[in-house]
Amino acid sequence: MFRMLAKASVTLGSRAAGWVRTMGSYQLLVPPPEALSKPLSVPTRLLLGPGPSNLAPRVLAAGSLRMIGHMQKEMLQIMEEIKQGIQYVFQTRNPLTLVVSGSGHCAMETALFNLLEPGDSFLTGTNGIWGMRAAEIADRIGARVHQMIKKPGEHYTLQEVEEGLAQHKPVLLFLVHGESSTGVVQPLDGFGELCHRYQCLLLVDSVASLGGVPIYMDQQGIDIMYSSSQKVLNAPPGISLISFNDKAKYKVYSRKTKPVSFYTDITYLAKLWGCEGETRVIHHTTPVTSLYCLRESLALIAEQGLENCWRRHREATAHLHKHLQEMGLKFFVKDPEIRLPTITTVTVPAGYNWRDIVSYVLDHFSIEISGGLGPTEERVLRIGLLGYNATTENVDRVAEALREALQHCPKNKL
Amino acid sequence: MFRMLAKASVTLGSRAAGWVRTMGSYQLLVPPPEALSKPLSVPTRLLLGPGPSNLAPRVLAAGSLRMIGHMQKEMLQIMEEIKQGIQYVFQTRNPLTLVVSGSGHCAMETALFNLLEPGDSFLTGTNGIWGMRAAEIADRIGARVHQMIKKPGEHYTLQEVEEGLAQHKPVLLFLVHGESSTGVVQPLDGFGELCHRYQCLLLVDSVASLGGVPIYMDQQGIDIMYSSSQKVLNAPPGISLISFNDKAKYKVYSRKTKPVSFYTDITYLAKLWGCEGETRVIHHTTPVTSLYCLRESLALIAEQGLENCWRRHREATAHLHKHLQEMGLKFFVKDPEIRLPTITTVTVPAGYNWRDIVSYVLDHFSIEISGGLGPTEERVLRIGLLGYNATTENVDRVAEALREALQHCPKNKL
Ligand SMILES: Cc1ncc(COP(=O)(O)O)c(C=O)c1O
Ligand SMILES: Cc1ncc(COP(=O)(O)O)c(C=O)c1O
Repeated sequence: MFRMLAKASVTLGSRAAGWVRTMGSYQLLVPPPEALSKPLSVPTRLLLGPGPSNLAPRVLAAGSLRMIGHMQKEMLQIMEEIKQGIQYVFQTRNPLTLVVSGSGHCAMETALFNLLEPGDSFLTGTNGIWGMRAAEIADRIGARVHQMIKKPGEHYTLQEVEEGLAQHKPVLLFLVHGESSTGVVQPLDGFGELCHRYQCLLLVDSVASLGGVPIYMDQQGIDIMYSSSQKVLNAPPGISLISFNDKAKYKVYSRKTKPVSFYTDITYLAKLWGCEGETRVIHHTTPVTSLYCLRESLALIAEQGLENCWRRHREATAHLHKHLQEMGLKFFVKDPEIRLPTITTVTVPAGYNWRDIVSYVLDHFSIEISGGLGPTEERVLRIGLLGYNATTENVDRVAEALREALQHCPKNKL
Repeated sequence: MFRMLAKASVTLGSRAAGWVRTMGSYQLLVPPPEALSKPLSVPTRLLLGPGPSNLAPRVLAAGSLRMIGHMQKEMLQIMEEIKQGIQYVFQTRNPLTLVVSGSGHCAMETALFNLLEPGDSFLTGTNGIWGMRAAEIADRIGARVHQMIKKPGEHYTLQEVEEGLAQHKPVLLFLVHGESSTGVVQPLDGFGELCHRYQCLLLVDSVASLGGVPIYMDQQGIDIMYSSSQKVLNAPPGISLISFNDKAKYKVYSRKTKPVSFYTDITYLAKLWGCEGETRVIHHTTPVTSLYCLRESLALIAEQGLENCWRRHREATAHLHKHLQEMGLKFFVKDPEIRLPTITTVTVPAGYNWRDIVSYVLDHFSIEISGGLGPTEERVLRIGLLGYNATTENVDRVAEALREALQHCPKNKL
């Protein structure tokens, strides 16, 4: 044993050949990479894709605040403030409200891992990529997955969902509020009530809509909801927001099997986040800096007021729609009532390649917009007006960029 | 349907009562939280616990760089540089090397979720909390878990591991390089070879040791290794580093079942991180800002050279040990050869309560040190010298703080 350790200890200078030095019987065979010797630099961009969005200046500043221990009282206070901020933007009083230490997908998994047990019947609204994704995750953990498949660009009516509930008797229904791959906002009125009549919990993904579209978790009877940091909240990607009401909590806490993931086990996260009285139980190292940033972005929304945020998104998007119509562009979502006020999907105009347009706008205007995703790949352009970015000035800029792109990009190349 | 949406639309001003405004049939019932109206402030601390550690100034600066899209070419370049940086600090040439978008626990799950299938035999070295944790995770996904249980503060010999391998025929062995709950460094020479003789893969947790203790992934025959951002790397917590060699990759890619998690499915992460040729496949939104920071921390290690980092940790820790011995304190780890050069565990001196000491040091010196964790709870103090923090000046500061604490904290209170 001693011999082994001695072998591994550092003997500097012997047989040094360039960067290769002998370390007992081992050598540093992998050199320090050249590329890392250059300074890090990041271009200035206006981020008008489906997210991440530009960070609000106050959020940006929080990103360079000094580190403190994740279980120190100052940090617990920040976590408390974040919980309250989430309760505000979700419009919920659920005590079981917290941050998941991973991106939107991780929150989706947190919801499904905790709520579903193998064999449970699970129903999804699949009218874009996110319903497919939820189905995929639920399938991996052994749920019986039923998908209500609709065309991308469509939404679900109460009647359609009722049929699904009656037929499949699911324990959980998944609906996406802001379907970012298709640009649809799913109306949510009445769906909670409907689910509850069928002894089903309602899980809503509000990643792409929260803060930009009215949603009232408690009043709309949503049992579990999650969202993400990098869209309307204008915080760095990597963490997400989640809340469980008492009924959802009961389902989780009366499971027969442990959820597959310890990292996202809500019974531990609840204790870490102080959702069950004062005592905190260490679980994992929380993303301190990301939490600083999220705290600031929630403070910004609280300051402005949710209604003003919602209105700003509606107005900026209406302004965008006007521009797009003037350009003769076609909305991917036919029904104007269900066009998402945060992310607009435009059908790629005939004869053009979406890539050319996106590249033109990026190269000539330093604006990021995006193509489609999943079922809308190749078919749409996606323009996001998220939080801080949802201004008429930004709309005018991207509209100008698009106009120029349509003039200059090759048409009918094939 | 139209009616429902109309109901949810904003009707400002009507029936306004303080912050409560009517939104059709819904109201903002949860007010913006008071606490968020105060500015965010964070105290200055010297973080000498087991992590997170203080951020290096260059890393801190990267935290407030502007956002760009996670799939833009500039970001792909940063990801490339990070991969090379990980290959350097891991001393590996594995192409399947990348960042997991979650803390150390998430990396642990990534390894276990991808490598183990239900029914697989899994062997852990359980001489502290991390072996227990790996066992818990493997159990949740239905592996047959075998633990080699040893006292906290001890390590594993080749002979002990060989007995475990022979008895349980595991497909995977888990060892912790830097056992941060006990302060043990596990020697790794020969363990890879030994595992391979038994057709077992070797998985090593280097969260608390990487960059502070010599490790050579390829030369030591480690098949899978992960580490984390918030220890020696001095980056914000929340993301982690992982690498699979070809043998490990083969095991993952020839699974019969899908891993339970989509978020950490390595076949997708490999395509997102460009580990399989040029094409990148969108998977989840990567934590852009955290990646900026990690890029900078890897650049700092590349600049200094791994050997210098290792030596600095060895020297600073030797200096700490001298202080502790002068104070008459006892090391929790009896064998000096296996004391971890990054985190030192000190037995709580007789008559004292660890909480008093930790609080004294915090309140009077703004230094964070920590108590025990898991099996060492109540029993030890943990002092971390991690990366940037591993200096003799810091050691002198914490030693002075400890000396004073021992003078002023209540003794034999009960
Ligand atoms: C509606 C919706 N759900 C889930 C996600 C997944 O979030 P993330 O990419 O942060 O994992 C996204 C991301 O774009 C989204 O728009
Ligand atoms: C050795 C070791 N493994 C795993 C972890 C878990 O990492 P995290 O807290 O980032 O989830 C830690 C954290 O302290 C650790 O020290």
